[in-house]
Amino acid sequence: MIRIKTGIPGLDEILNGGVPKRNVVLLAGGPGTGKTIMGMQYLWAGISEYEEPGIYVALEEHPVQVRINMKQFGWDVKPFEEKGFFAIVDGFTAGIGEAAKREKYVVPAPDDVYSLVDTLRRAITDIGAERVVIDSVTTLYLTKPSIARGIVLQLKKVLSGMGCTSILVSQVSVTDRGFGGPGVEHAADGIIRLDLDEIKGQLQRSIIVWKMRGTAHSMRRHPFDITDDGIIIYPDKSIITE
Amino acid sequence: MIRIKTGIPGLDEILNGGVPKRNVVLLAGGPGTGKTIMGMQYLWAGISEYEEPGIYVALEEHPVQVRINMKQFGWDVKPFEEKGFFAIVDGFTAGIGEAAKREKYVVPAPDDVYSLVDTLRRAITDIGAERVVIDSVTTLYLTKPSIARGIVLQLKKVLSGMGCTSILVSQVSVTDRGFGGPGVEHAADGIIRLDLDEIKGQLQRSIIVWKMRGTAHSMRRHPFDITDDGIIIYPDKSIITE
Amino acid sequence: MIRIKTGIPGLDEILNGGVPKRNVVLLAGGPGTGKTIMGMQYLWAGISEYEEPGIYVALEEHPVQVRINMKQFGWDVKPFEEKGFFAIVDGFTAGIGEAAKREKYVVPAPDDVYSLVDTLRRAITDIGAERVVIDSVTTLYLTKPSIARGIVLQLKKVLSGMGCTSILVSQVSVTDRGFGGPGVEHAADGIIRLDLDEIKGQLQRSIIVWKMRGTAHSMRRHPFDITDDGIIIYPDKSIITE
Amino acid sequence: MIRIKTGIPGLDEILNGGVPKRNVVLLAGGPGTGKTIMGMQYLWAGISEYEEPGIYVALEEHPVQVRINMKQFGWDVKPFEEKGFFAIVDGFTAGIGEAAKREKYVVPAPDDVYSLVDTLRRAITDIGAERVVIDSVTTLYLTKPSIARGIVLQLKKVLSGMGCTSILVSQVSVTDRGFGGPGVEHAADGIIRLDLDEIKGQLQRSIIVWKMRGTAHSMRRHPFDITDDGIIIYPDKSIITE
Amino acid sequence: MIRIKTGIPGLDEILNGGVPKRNVVLLAGGPGTGKTIMGMQYLWAGISEYEEPGIYVALEEHPVQVRINMKQFGWDVKPFEEKGFFAIVDGFTAGIGEAAKREKYVVPAPDDVYSLVDTLRRAITDIGAERVVIDSVTTLYLTKPSIARGIVLQLKKVLSGMGCTSILVSQVSVTDRGFGGPGVEHAADGIIRLDLDEIKGQLQRSIIVWKMRGTAHSMRRHPFDITDDGIIIYPDKSIITE
Amino acid sequence: MIRIKTGIPGLDEILNGGVPKRNVVLLAGGPGTGKTIMGMQYLWAGISEYEEPGIYVALEEHPVQVRINMKQFGWDVKPFEEKGFFAIVDGFTAGIGEAAKREKYVVPAPDDVYSLVDTLRRAITDIGAERVVIDSVTTLYLTKPSIARGIVLQLKKVLSGMGCTSILVSQVSVTDRGFGGPGVEHAADGIIRLDLDEIKGQLQRSIIVWKMRGTAHSMRRHPFDITDDGIIIYPDKSIITE
Repeated sequence: MIRIKTGIPGLDEILNGGVPKRNVVLLAGGPGTGKTIMGMQYLWAGISEYEEPGIYVALEEHPVQVRINMKQFGWDVKPFEEKGFFAIVDGFTAGIGEAAKREKYVVPAPDDVYSLVDTLRRAITDIGAERVVIDSVTTLYLTKPSIARGIVLQLKKVLSGMGCTSILVSQVSVTDRGFGGPGVEHAADGIIRLDLDEIKGQLQRSIIVWKMRGTAHSMRRHPFDITDDGIIIYPDKSIITE
Repeated sequence: MIRIKTGIPGLDEILNGGVPKRNVVLLAGGPGTGKTIMGMQYLWAGISEYEEPGIYVALEEHPVQVRINMKQFGWDVKPFEEKGFFAIVDGFTAGIGEAAKREKYVVPAPDDVYSLVDTLRRAITDIGAERVVIDSVTTLYLTKPSIARGIVLQLKKVLSGMGCTSILVSQVSVTDRGFGGPGVEHAADGIIRLDLDEIKGQLQRSIIVWKMRGTAHSMRRHPFDITDDGIIIYPDKSIITE
Repeated sequence: MIRIKTGIPGLDEILNGGVPKRNVVLLAGGPGTGKTIMGMQYLWAGISEYEEPGIYVALEEHPVQVRINMKQFGWDVKPFEEKGFFAIVDGFTAGIGEAAKREKYVVPAPDDVYSLVDTLRRAITDIGAERVVIDSVTTLYLTKPSIARGIVLQLKKVLSGMGCTSILVSQVSVTDRGFGGPGVEHAADGIIRLDLDEIKGQLQRSIIVWKMRGTAHSMRRHPFDITDDGIIIYPDKSIITE
Repeated sequence: MIRIKTGIPGLDEILNGGVPKRNVVLLAGGPGTGKTIMGMQYLWAGISEYEEPGIYVALEEHPVQVRINMKQFGWDVKPFEEKGFFAIVDGFTAGIGEAAKREKYVVPAPDDVYSLVDTLRRAITDIGAERVVIDSVTTLYLTKPSIARGIVLQLKKVLSGMGCTSILVSQVSVTDRGFGGPGVEHAADGIIRLDLDEIKGQLQRSIIVWKMRGTAHSMRRHPFDITDDGIIIYPDKSIITE
Repeated sequence: MIRIKTGIPGLDEILNGGVPKRNVVLLAGGPGTGKTIMGMQYLWAGISEYEEPGIYVALEEHPVQVRINMKQFGWDVKPFEEKGFFAIVDGFTAGIGEAAKREKYVVPAPDDVYSLVDTLRRAITDIGAERVVIDSVTTLYLTKPSIARGIVLQLKKVLSGMGCTSILVSQVSVTDRGFGGPGVEHAADGIIRLDLDEIKGQLQRSIIVWKMRGTAHSMRRHPFDITDDGIIIYPDKSIITE
Repeated sequence: MIRIKTGIPGLDEILNGGVPKRNVVLLAGGPGTGKTIMGMQYLWAGISEYEEPGIYVALEEHPVQVRINMKQFGWDVKPFEEKGFFAIVDGFTAGIGEAAKREKYVVPAPDDVYSLVDTLRRAITDIGAERVVIDSVTTLYLTKPSIARGIVLQLKKVLSGMGCTSILVSQVSVTDRGFGGPGVEHAADGIIRLDLDEIKGQLQRSIIVWKMRGTAHSMRRHPFDITDDGIIIYPDKSIITE
C-alpha cells in the first residue's frame, strides 16, 4: 500500500507513516481549531517537499485571501501555480469581481455540486493533482443536511477515482462533539478530529485520529500547537480533555 | 437448533457457539468501529472455513473497492466468486461506469428496496448463499427514517425465508448510543454493538451482544482489536467504558 | 376483585397475587429485554395451568415463527390451537404467502386498527379468550405518534369490555427511559417495565412494576433471568441500576 | 378568604387549611403517581364530609368504570348521584353504547371543548357543584399543545366564575419534570405535583405544592402512601428525591 | 440619571437605588415564583408612596380578579383608579361579560398587539402613567415565538418613548433556566429573574438581577419571601441554588 | 501585518497587540454580558485616540438612544459626527418618526440585507471608516437561521473589501454556550466570547478569545469589569467558570 506523507510535523508518525493513497479523509472540528491551516499545510508539504501537485478548493474564502493566508505561514504558492504544480479552485466568487477574472479555475455555480465537480476534474487533470483539499465540504450541504451523504459519496468517487488523496474539511459547531452527521462520518475513509477545549480556563488544542482505512494509527489524543510555521503535533504526548 | 459459526476469533465463544441459523443480526456502531471489517470477516470465514457461500451487498462502496479492502486482510474473494461461492451485489454503481459492467449482480435502482431485493434473491439462489451481509442497511432509509422498520422487516422476510443467516450493518452517529432507531432495533433477531470510546485520551474498542434470539450469550462487554488479519475479540476479558 | 395469575415465576408475588382481571397492562422495554418472551409465557401459563384460553396478536413476526419461538421454550401451542384454546391473530402477513393461507385469524389490513379489532373480536369470541397479548402495540402507531392514545383507548374498550386481561407490548428505544409516550402511559391500567442495563461492563436484567390499578404491588426493582424455560423473576432480591 | 377542605389526610395541613375557594389547581404527575385517586378522594370528601356537591369529568374512563374504581376505595357515589349531590360528566363515550344511555351528563362531542363546557355548566347548575375534577385536562390538547393555554383559561373562567374550586389533572410523561407546559402552568391558580421516583431500586411517592394563590403553604416535599382507603400524606415528614 | 424606586423592600438596594427611568425590565421566572406579585407591588409602591401613576396590563386574569388579588396584600387600588392615578388595561375579556362593561380600558382584540398598544397609549396619556406592568408579555407570542422580538421592540418604543419605566412579566417553563428566548432577552434593558428551586426537598425563593442598563447592580443571588404584605428581598443575604 | 488597537484596557494585550486589520470579529455572548458596551468602546477608542473613523450600525436601538447610552460612559460622539469622523447607520427606525428624519444614514428596509449593505457602503465611503460595529448581526437572521452564513459572508466581503476592521455582535441565548450557529462561527475571522456566569450565587464576567486569524492570542479566560468608564479586562488574571 502506498502512503501519502502529510508532511505535517507529528502527523505522519501518528498515522504510522502517512495517509493511505486515495483515501478521503474528513478533517472535522469546531471554529478556530486549525482545520484550514492543516489543510493548507498538507498541500504545501506536497508541492514543496514531495513533488505532489495539489489543489485547494476554496468555498469559504476568496482565492486572493487564500494566497495571503498561506503566505502568512511562509507558504508562497504563486510560483507553484505558475509552473502548474498548484491550483486554487475558486468556489467562492462565482466569477464575480475583477480579481476573480484572473482565476483559472472558477466554479460558475458554487451552489451546484455538479458545477464544482466539473471544475475540479479539469483542474486535477491539468496539473496531475495528487492531493486535494476541499474547504469546507460542510458549505455544500449546510442548509440541506439530507443530501450530505450523497455529496460526499460523489466527491469520493471523483477524488479517489482520479488517484487523489484528499482532505474534506468538516465544520461542526463548537458545542457538537460529532464529525458532521452520520451520512458523512461513515462515507469517509478516514476521520481526524481537531479540538479546542477550555480546560480550567485555558484553551487546549488536540488532535485524535478516529479512523483511517488501510492502516493502523495512534489510538491516543495528542496535543498540538499552531506556530508561525504552521501546525506541530506532539506524537509522544497524550492529552485528556474530558 | 443449528448455529452458524461466525469464524471471528472470540465471537462464537461469546455467542455460546455461533449465531442461530436464519437470524437477522443488527451490527450497530459509530464510524471507525469496525463494522465493515467484521461483516467481511464473517463472509470470509464462511467461504474459506465452513463451505457456506456468502453474499456481500455493497451499498457504500464500489464492488472493486470492496475486493481491494478485503484483500488487504488477506481475504482474496476472486477465486470464490469464480467458482460461484461468493458474490457481491452491487448496490452502489447503478451499473454506471466501465467497472460496473463486469459485475454480475447489479441493482438497477439502489434507492428502491424492491430493486435491491430482486437482485439479492437472484444472487442467493444462484450461489446457494447461507450468509448475507448488507453494508449498510442505514443507507436504505437515511433520509426517510419513518420507513426504516418496514425495510428491515422486508429484508428479514426474504433473508430468513431463504435460509440465510445475515448481518445488517447499522450506522449510527458517533454521539448516539442507540442501535439505529426503535423500529429497527426491535425488528432484528439479534443486536451486536461495536464501540470506539475515548477513555482518558485513549481510544478503546469493545463489543457487546445486546440480544440474540434463540441462544444465551455473554452479558459482558469485551475488548477487541483490529489486526492485519482482521478482528480478534477477547472473550475472557471485560471492559468498562462508562 | 378477581386476579389473573400470570404464572410467571415471581411475577405474581410482586403483583400481590396477579393482575386484576380486565386490566390492560403496558409491558414496556427496550430491544432484547424479554418483552415478547414474557408475553408468550403469560399466555402459555394461561392455557397450560389455569385453563384460560389466550390469544397472541402477532404484529412483528410471522405466525409460523411465533410457534417456533414458543416451542424453543417448550411451549407447544399447536394442540391448544387445535382444541380451540389458543389462537394467533396474524397481523403480519396480510394473508400474503402460502403459510398465511393456513392461518385462521388473518387481519386483512394490518395498518388499519379497525381491521385488527374486527379480527381480534372474532377470535376472542370464538375461543372465549381470557388473556390477550398484543406484540407490539407500538407497531400500530410507530409513524403516527399523535394517534397512539386513541388506539390504546380503542383496544382497551374492546379488551376490557370483553372480559380479557391483556398485555400490550410497548417497544421503546434503548436510550429512552419512558414507557411509550404520555398518551399511552396514562391510558394503560398497569405499567410493567423490563430493563437491560449495562452496569460496569455487565448486562443486567430487571423488572419494575410502575403502576397496577386495583392492587398494591412491589415498589422495588427486581432482577430476573431468561432461562431455557422462560423468565424467572426474583421477588426477594432488589437491584439498583442507576 | 374561604378555604375548601380537601379532606385528604395531610393535604389540608400542608395547604395551611385547604384550597382557597374558586382556585383552579393543576394536579400534575407521571403515570401511576395517584392523580386520579387524589381527584376522586377530593370529591368524595366533599360529598361525604363537607356537604359540598361535586362533579367528576371523565375523559379517560367510562363513567361505569369510574364508579367501580371509586368503590374499590369504599367511595360509593351511587346514592349521592341519586340525590343530586354528585355527578359524572361523561366525556368518554360520546353517548355510544348501552351504558352511556343511562348517563345523565354526556358530552356529545368530547373533542370539542365548547361541547364539554356546555355539559359541565349544566351539571354544575343542576347539582350546585362546589367541587369539580377534570381527569384529565391533558386529553383536551394532547395533540394540539398550542391551544393548551386557551383551553385552561376557558375552563378557569367557567369554573371560577361559577364558584367552584377545581382540580385539573395534568398528565406528564414519566421522564418529564414539568407540569404540562408553560401555557398551562402559568394559567393555573395552584400547582400540586405528585411524584413516583425510583430511588436506589425502590419506588417512592411524594407530593410538593409548587404554588397556591391566596395562601402560604408547605415549601417541603412530603412522602405519601396509597392505601385501601385512599391517599395519606405525611405533613410532618420530608423527602429528598434528587 | 433618574431612578425609579421600586418600593419593594430590598430590591432598590440591589439595584443601587432603583430602576433607571424609561428602562424596560424583563421579569422572568417559572410558575409560582412571584412575578405577578412583584409587578403589582411595584405599581402599588408607585401610587401609594411615590405619587407615580401606574398601569397594570391584565392579559392573564380578569380585571376584577386582579383587584381582588391585589387587595389580598392590602393593596386597594379602587380609590386610586377613581382619582385617575391607577388603571387596569383589560386585555383579557375582549369586552365580553357584564363586568367587562364597567372597565374603562378594554383591548378590543387582545390577540392583536396593535390593538393592545392603542389602548395602552390612551391609558398612559389619560393618567400620566410613569409605571407600566404587562402581565404577561409571553401571552402575546406564546404560539408564535418568531414574532416575540418584534413585539417586545414595539412595546419598548411606546413605553420608553412615553417616559414610562416598565416591567414585562416573562413566563418560562419550570424546567427552563432561560429568560424567554434570545430575541426577548436581548431586546430588554434589564433582566430580573425570580426562581423557585427544590433544594434537598425544600422549596427556596431567590432573585438575581442579570442585567440593568444604566446602572451597576448586585451581582449576587438573594433569597426572598412572599409575605402577607408582599415580597421582601434580603439584600444582605446570598443564596446558592446550583 | 497591520493591527488595529481596540483601545479597550486589557484587550489588546490578550490579542498580542490588537485585531489584525480587515478581520471580521464575531463578538458573541448572552444577554447582559457587555457586548454592546464593548462595541461602542471599540469605536470610541478609534475616534478619540487613534484617528480612525468608525461606524455603529444600530439594529437594536434608536440612534438617539445609542448616543445617550454612549454618553453615559462619557463617550460623546456628537462632535465627531459633525466633523465626519463617526456615523450611526440607522437600521432601526426605517425612517419612521421625527427623530429619524434628522439621521443621515437611514436603512430604508432594515429587513433587507441589501438595503443595509447599500447604506453601510455609502457611510463607509463618506467618512473613510476604518472600524465598523454591527449590533447585532443576529437580528438579520433571527427568524431565518438558514440564511445566517450567507449574510455574514456578504457583510464580510463588503467590510473586509473596503478595508474596515469590524465587530459583529452575536446574541446567543443565556443557556447556549455556542457563538451563533455553525455557519456564522466558521465564517468569521475571529471569535471573542463574553460570559456572565453564576458561580456559587455570584455573577462573574469573563472574556475568552476563541480564534483570531493572523495572530496568536491569549488562550486563557480572563475576568473583566464594566465600570463607569467602560470595560476593563484583566490580562494577568485567569478565571475558571466551569
